Amino acid sequence: MSHPISPLAPPAQPDLPALAGVRLATGAAGIRYKDRTDVLLVELTPGTTVAGVFTKSLTRSAPVDWCKQSLAKGSARALVVNAGNANAFTGKAGEASVERTVKAAAKLLGCSTNEVYVASTGVIGEPMADDRLTAALPTLRSQINDDWAAAARAIMTTDTYPKAVTRTARIDGVEVRLQGIIKGSGMIQPDMATMLGFIFTDAAIAAPALQTLLARYTPRTFNSITVDSDTSTSDTVLLFATGKAGHAPVAEAGDSRLGSFRRALEAVMRDLALLVVKDGEGVERLVTIEVSGAASERTARRIGLAIANSPLVKTAIAAGDANWGRIVMAVGKAGEKADRDKLSISIGGVAVARNGARVEGYDEGPVASHMAGRDIRIAVDVGVGRGKATVWTGDLTHRYIDINGSYRS
Amino acid sequence: MSHPISPLAPPAQPDLPALAGVRLATGAAGIRYKDRTDVLLVELTPGTTVAGVFTKSLTRSAPVDWCKQSLAKGSARALVVNAGNANAFTGKAGEASVERTVKAAAKLLGCSTNEVYVASTGVIGEPMADDRLTAALPTLRSQINDDWAAAARAIMTTDTYPKAVTRTARIDGVEVRLQGIIKGSGMIQPDMATMLGFIFTDAAIAAPALQTLLARYTPRTFNSITVDSDTSTSDTVLLFATGKAGHAPVAEAGDSRLGSFRRALEAVMRDLALLVVKDGEGVERLVTIEVSGAASERTARRIGLAIANSPLVKTAIAAGDANWGRIVMAVGKAGEKADRDKLSISIGGVAVARNGARVEGYDEGPVASHMAGRDIRIAVDVGVGRGKATVWTGDLTHRYIDINGSYRS
Repeated sequence: MSHPISPLAPPAQPDLPALAGVRLATGAAGIRYKDRTDVLLVELTPGTTVAGVFTKSLTRSAPVDWCKQSLAKGSARALVVNAGNANAFTGKAGEASVERTVKAAAKLLGCSTNEVYVASTGVIGEPMADDRLTAALPTLRSQINDDWAAAARAIMTTDTYPKAVTRTARIDGVEVRLQGIIKGSGMIQPDMATMLGFIFTDAAIAAPALQTLLARYTPRTFNSITVDSDTSTSDTVLLFATGKAGHAPVAEAGDSRLGSFRRALEAVMRDLALLVVKDGEGVERLVTIEVSGAASERTARRIGLAIANSPLVKTAIAAGDANWGRIVMAVGKAGEKADRDKLSISIGGVAVARNGARVEGYDEGPVASHMAGRDIRIAVDVGVGRGKATVWTGDLTHRYIDINGSYRS
Repeated sequence: MSHPISPLAPPAQPDLPALAGVRLATGAAGIRYKDRTDVLLVELTPGTTVAGVFTKSLTRSAPVDWCKQSLAKGSARALVVNAGNANAFTGKAGEASVERTVKAAAKLLGCSTNEVYVASTGVIGEPMADDRLTAALPTLRSQINDDWAAAARAIMTTDTYPKAVTRTARIDGVEVRLQGIIKGSGMIQPDMATMLGFIFTDAAIAAPALQTLLARYTPRTFNSITVDSDTSTSDTVLLFATGKAGHAPVAEAGDSRLGSFRRALEAVMRDLALLVVKDGEGVERLVTIEVSGAASERTARRIGLAIANSPLVKTAIAAGDANWGRIVMAVGKAGEKADRDKLSISIGGVAVARNGARVEGYDEGPVASHMAGRDIRIAVDVGVGRGKATVWTGDLTHRYIDINGSYRS
């Protein structure tokens, strides 16, 4: 069953240039889907460093376990991704499947197995047909190319459009590029990273510094989005740096030469995360929730997520209803410090409530107009401190139920 | 907009006899609804003791604040309930509204204001038309009667059927009765009690003992149900004991004479809670989730709630899909101790997964038949300890979105 393209999809895909040190190929291995690509092989130049963040799920998948363990080495030569089967909750058979896959890829590329990263997305709990995956690898290697758009398509599951972001920065006066692809639509409340996201750069940055930067920006990007409050067993974001841009290598995350790179990295991460929300299952409106006045950034984010995950808030937004009482309810249930009698709420920039009660002479007209649009902005001040955070989500529509009644994830 | 009666509604309402020391009257005050009753006055005999549990929401309503404060006195003469307006997030005006209401009722009945309990349910954030409520009180008093079924109807909001439970127990060889009414359908993940529930008994039990018993059974009854993970600002359960049954008064919760009463009380609380789940907004299937092997009863309940609140689990159940991989996902995101590699799952009594992987030769046939029914049973053992708990929820259907896009709660 295929679903219509999200109304929030970007009007056009960005041009995705070749990136020095990164080559890719996609293929149709028939792991679950028919008549579409479902495998991606990325070949990385020797010397590529790597960082990763992963789901905190206690039922995480075998590929996640493999990548976490390999990160200690900090170097990467290949990434193998498949869509259709998550290889999660597959026990020892799942681990063996990962081992066969990384061995096949390592042999093909002449590298160590710990330099092969793997990610799988799709059904949970079914045995993985890794024989189809390994059988496809030699052909993929022989067809290696620079078609990034094809790569973004090959990793989709319930996604309705492929997702990619590209951006440049400067290090030591040398232009470097950051380019990422991501997939995700449902089972989205990343608890460390979201579904499968892969960011590549030709910058030369040591693995520990790369890891520091990826971890620093994850809370306010990937971990600040939610579609349905459900956390995937496969959440994986990997950041690879090939070092081919030509500047002198950078060893420390705090190096002043990384200023432009750091800003670009956070922007790429945020833009990738937003592409996921905009393709949230059934989502018809993008909802940006700004929480201020909280005890800390962390508690502000939790309050934001309580609002973002409330089915009552989300169904009201789907109906274009400025039902701000439900926002009050969600703040109340968040379990974080908030002062009911100082609570202020605005929707679309219009003050709705102040100091714990509806504003005098409240006129719902302009708020109702705002709610009729696709870009909903909610601001909440909880009146106890200076912590703030922004969280992004979508509305909850009938299409979410259609999609998830028919898709075996 | 009215909605069809839940397919899980009991085939018939129980006979609700008069209860010594309790009299009631309902009326149509037009607070929000037209052409239906929306106010309930309960008059309690002098000497009635009272216990209560309330929402832990930080944005709790003015009536909740009032009742919590009055409980210290432990005696009750009246209960005034209205449907249509929750009097929540209404600031000082909301408090003043409660004060006017309890003053009017106290004057009418010749009691202290602290003996008048109030509960309101409906829209959050709108000023309360308490003048209509207080104006209705003298007529209600003059029409006082024993029509419990009418009382159950007068407190409904999005409920599709009235909810009441009755049961007897024995104290010192004397038969006592416990009879309760409850309302609730959406915004149901009680964090102390659920929406509005009122239990009455003619037993003679001191207020502190009553409070101990109510608090003891709340976690495994009202706090073990969820419809949509959203916690109401108005959650209130009150337990009143009129002492009219004729046995010698009981002072201590642990008194051995209360054995039969304690069992009956827990059963009444559980049955009332289940009536709420069965009328959950849009619910078409009752889902019972038994979690075992957890570190404690509390963590077992949290894991059960994570499964029960997962939109992906709930939409799969709505589609009759035995999608057990999503149960694995929900256990993983619960944030409580669980051993992925010892996890076992059964559905409808059929083993699906054992020791972290699907059982050998798994046949989905009998599980699919079970999923086609209305009474879905999921059992999960998380393999780390001896804690267990049962949680009840419903599925997530299109009707939930219809209801909540059209109702201003």
